[in-house]
Amino acid sequence: MSDQLERLDRLPLRTNLRGLSPYGAPQLDVPILLNVNENTHGVPADVQAAITEAVAAAATGLNRYPDREFTELREALAEYLGHDLSADNIWAANGSNEVLQQILQVFGGPGRSALGFPPTYSMYPLLASGTDTAYIAGVRAEDYGLDAASAAAQVRELKPNVVFLCSPNNPTGTGLGLDVVEAVYDAGEASRTVVIVDEAYHEFAHDNTPSALTLLPGRERLIVSRTMSKAFALAGARIGYMAAAPEVADAIRLVRLPYHLSAITQATALAALRHREALMADVEDIKVQRDRIVSELTRMGFKPAASDSNYVFFGGIENPHALWQGLLERGVLIRDVGIPGHLRVTAGTEPETTAFLKALEALLDGQVSAPA
Amino acid sequence: MSDQLERLDRLPLRTNLRGLSPYGAPQLDVPILLNVNENTHGVPADVQAAITEAVAAAATGLNRYPDREFTELREALAEYLGHDLSADNIWAANGSNEVLQQILQVFGGPGRSALGFPPTYSMYPLLASGTDTAYIAGVRAEDYGLDAASAAAQVRELKPNVVFLCSPNNPTGTGLGLDVVEAVYDAGEASRTVVIVDEAYHEFAHDNTPSALTLLPGRERLIVSRTMSKAFALAGARIGYMAAAPEVADAIRLVRLPYHLSAITQATALAALRHREALMADVEDIKVQRDRIVSELTRMGFKPAASDSNYVFFGGIENPHALWQGLLERGVLIRDVGIPGHLRVTAGTEPETTAFLKALEALLDGQVSAPA
Repeated sequence: MSDQLERLDRLPLRTNLRGLSPYGAPQLDVPILLNVNENTHGVPADVQAAITEAVAAAATGLNRYPDREFTELREALAEYLGHDLSADNIWAANGSNEVLQQILQVFGGPGRSALGFPPTYSMYPLLASGTDTAYIAGVRAEDYGLDAASAAAQVRELKPNVVFLCSPNNPTGTGLGLDVVEAVYDAGEASRTVVIVDEAYHEFAHDNTPSALTLLPGRERLIVSRTMSKAFALAGARIGYMAAAPEVADAIRLVRLPYHLSAITQATALAALRHREALMADVEDIKVQRDRIVSELTRMGFKPAASDSNYVFFGGIENPHALWQGLLERGVLIRDVGIPGHLRVTAGTEPETTAFLKALEALLDGQVSAPA
Repeated sequence: MSDQLERLDRLPLRTNLRGLSPYGAPQLDVPILLNVNENTHGVPADVQAAITEAVAAAATGLNRYPDREFTELREALAEYLGHDLSADNIWAANGSNEVLQQILQVFGGPGRSALGFPPTYSMYPLLASGTDTAYIAGVRAEDYGLDAASAAAQVRELKPNVVFLCSPNNPTGTGLGLDVVEAVYDAGEASRTVVIVDEAYHEFAHDNTPSALTLLPGRERLIVSRTMSKAFALAGARIGYMAAAPEVADAIRLVRLPYHLSAITQATALAALRHREALMADVEDIKVQRDRIVSELTRMGFKPAASDSNYVFFGGIENPHALWQGLLERGVLIRDVGIPGHLRVTAGTEPETTAFLKALEALLDGQVSAPA
């Protein structure tokens, strides 16, 4: 045991934290970063300018606490989402992780449980642990799909207080049918289960994939979470949000830290929302690159999952670690999510996507880890 | 019960949240705001310019996740604090509230307790509740003082997992002798009690008031928390931080949300730290106004507490609510902290302080709530 770990172990940590390591993807210095599903198109110049201008205006009043209710931002997010939502339906925080943590502080906690369906977003169990909520790992089909009957049966049996439905799912990228959301919601009626549909990547969905926002009316236990990290290319600005019944937002007000959303964060988010045309054009290009990756990987003999996101999860890899390493040596970092036979790659710009596909073909030609 | 509350009550909230209302000081639109201990001198023009420039630079890379370890900011904060601290000793988050919440997530939680000494910062019990930590209200002397013997005896008796020592204390403004911190730390040896000294207002202390930072060497259960909201005039930017043994920072890494500190927040903090000369000049002026308030209030017959902060807590008021209301009608908002016979006022700019004192004298002349 290192000195550092030994010293950590001498501190009076809460028992369930002993022996843990902090979460985080490796941060390596590589020319082409396609590992954490960032929007590699970057922030368009007009959005950068708008953000700078908005922050300059906010800087004049930074000595004052920010608007605790971030009313203007909630209005702008409601307008962006549509579906007849108003500011009363919206809540936001420093990244959707904080929104999810707040939801667990309200509806989870000691003696309560949250159900997720791995492989899924790896923060769910960590958010549960951080709020002393028991995390239950549900079961998916062999192809990582999740159908309405199976999901509903698991909710009826396990009676969780909270369910996480990630759609499109991370790391598989596949969207969830609304029938699954409806079935899970109905199955949770007796146990008053709160259903979170995590739509962090929804903007990248194919046009015929509906959002769970359409299901909100009349369902006060349903929450749809979103982020500005992906489609809005603002991973560095940490802005997540959710839409739900107004009473859900009121409930979160009981646990949120007052003034949790800085005036600068509010100004940044508002500027990006006002200047979203260029951002949405980039989203369309990312979808083109994503579809291109799926068809090229198929042509090469891999088995990519259907993707409604800005990344592609692909199987049929004999030796994922060797392939990951080979790409890294060619300057392309993708993600080994720890699932046998699989890797995940973010859809980048056209040149980045080309570089990834070329490096992959070169590796296949050299017989480094051909498809199984 | 209103419709809204009735709907909230139908949600499956955690039991200990039922019937609560969200925390927050009233936000009123009044010309002179001396109610929430903001730095009313504002952000100096050169600091505003530096922030805008830094955010413009950060905006070019906002599509990427921020530096999860905010290394440059930790280095700058260590350099600012001095006392031979390095980046390894520092942790920061979105306001010191979030730092304190993270500390409770690590060292508090279900089955554990935190001790505070009311009247003190009103967020302590709320942070405890939000992390399912039992909050214990300790006892102060009749004059709201806290001496070493009494504080240590309470720690030995109650064996809390965490102690909050607020110095200077909010709302009383009085600094705590380091003998109290030492005695509390030693008294907590058997119970492995973590001692937090909340020095949010330390920069306003009189020159002869030492910081608990001097006590850090050799005390791995001691944490000193600070904020950029007050002396740095950045309440709107939400930047709190702490200094402690490196293993305490490592422990917090187990519960922090990854990338919790945005690239914009990091850039803002760094810019303000680099351009702190004008800010520190304003701090000196605020101290002058604070001392002026204390001597003027004494002259008028009130009983102000000794203040090491940017506010003054004063007693000897026959009817605090009437006085608060009278000041409000004259355009000056101060804070009724709910302590019989007392009010609290923030030291503002010279003209704001003059306006407050004049309004107060006018009220006294009119016999509205003369000193008791």
